[in-house]
Amino acid sequence: MKKKEQAVLLLSGGMDSVTLLHYAGKRLGLSLCALTFDYGQKHRRELQAAAWQAAAVQLPLHRVVDLSFFATLTSGASALTDPALTVPDLAQLDAETLTQPPTYVPNRNMILLSIAAAFAESLGVDRVLYGAQCQDDYGYWDCTRPFLDRLNAVLALNRRRAVTVQAPFIGKRKADELRLGLELGVDYAHTWTCYRGETKACGTCPACIERLRAFTELGTPDPLAYC
Amino acid sequence: MKKKEQAVLLLSGGMDSVTLLHYAGKRLGLSLCALTFDYGQKHRRELQAAAWQAAAVQLPLHRVVDLSFFATLTSGASALTDPALTVPDLAQLDAETLTQPPTYVPNRNMILLSIAAAFAESLGVDRVLYGAQCQDDYGYWDCTRPFLDRLNAVLALNRRRAVTVQAPFIGKRKADELRLGLELGVDYAHTWTCYRGETKACGTCPACIERLRAFTELGTPDPLAYC
Repeated sequence: MKKKEQAVLLLSGGMDSVTLLHYAGKRLGLSLCALTFDYGQKHRRELQAAAWQAAAVQLPLHRVVDLSFFATLTSGASALTDPALTVPDLAQLDAETLTQPPTYVPNRNMILLSIAAAFAESLGVDRVLYGAQCQDDYGYWDCTRPFLDRLNAVLALNRRRAVTVQAPFIGKRKADELRLGLELGVDYAHTWTCYRGETKACGTCPACIERLRAFTELGTPDPLAYC
Repeated sequence: MKKKEQAVLLLSGGMDSVTLLHYAGKRLGLSLCALTFDYGQKHRRELQAAAWQAAAVQLPLHRVVDLSFFATLTSGASALTDPALTVPDLAQLDAETLTQPPTYVPNRNMILLSIAAAFAESLGVDRVLYGAQCQDDYGYWDCTRPFLDRLNAVLALNRRRAVTVQAPFIGKRKADELRLGLELGVDYAHTWTCYRGETKACGTCPACIERLRAFTELGTPDPLAYC
């Protein structure tokens, strides 16, 4: 039997990365190692979701990396990590703000993907996967195709192993991704999306709105409890 | 009086970054914040040198970031971080190996510069400086002009603040850099270069050889003690 090709997956515990976890294993036939990052996010409940999903698919290797210094290093820069800054409702944000909203975390994806590429390189693995998707309502520059292309142009300079970062959902809308995940049997009760660090999801932050719209579009109830 | 322009400097405690610390402050007239990284390097004596130099120039902000997880995450991949791997003498390495020697640390500079760019962004600073120089004897892809150009192409996508990474010594040889540093009054007794984690510098690893050649070329004694 041919040995399965391997990939390193960024597994946050959100809908995107969890759907990708199942898709990459079941449809792409990849053998996965996952990395989850604690970067001081308020919504650290997502770390539990990541652990649950990694166990559910019996990942052979799942590492949680402590970057919790990051929240204080970049203090004041993101509502996702700074306790003094409030996560806004999506409805509070104007069009210009939505191009780089207060929930943007400075250079986060480049940092996480750089570490994932190093991990892949050390394992002798050529691919890193992450769950960037086509955002309808708001945007982050580090979830775009140009970002991906340019990041790969950097990594291509490696003289031994040029790791490639791939985002299979980058052209997909959240609802398309959810449809795929439901077909694959993903249990979305064990994913976490809300940007606020509460026990229940708020239902009004940008991430909750996006999630709820996807469930509404498919006419499927969201298994998560909302305030 | 015009407010000084600011920059974030990667300060390892080695000759390159220490020379750059003095050059950027005294010649470029920049106000600097520095970041030093503990990534599990064997030569962690360089961290003490970084602290000494930061104090010597009275840096207003010097943060040491703990990435010590990195050595275990990339276990087996670099002689600079893995206790089970021996740092080779330069004389043991053939030409092909020298293009990416065992002392290469997977994707290290991209990780450190990504974090530095996030730090700069959060401070409202537009520049990151690092001490890459033109290596005579061996090479790392993440110390080259194409690496720098491509990294900046990624960062240019930021929709609010496109931080630029600069390496003022990238075209300089070690001896040129040393000449400049001596003119600027740099105390090289408080820099650390040797890749091995011993009390005295070994004098035979690739980094020691490169350092010693620079001192020899200038006809100046190296103030460090060697085995």
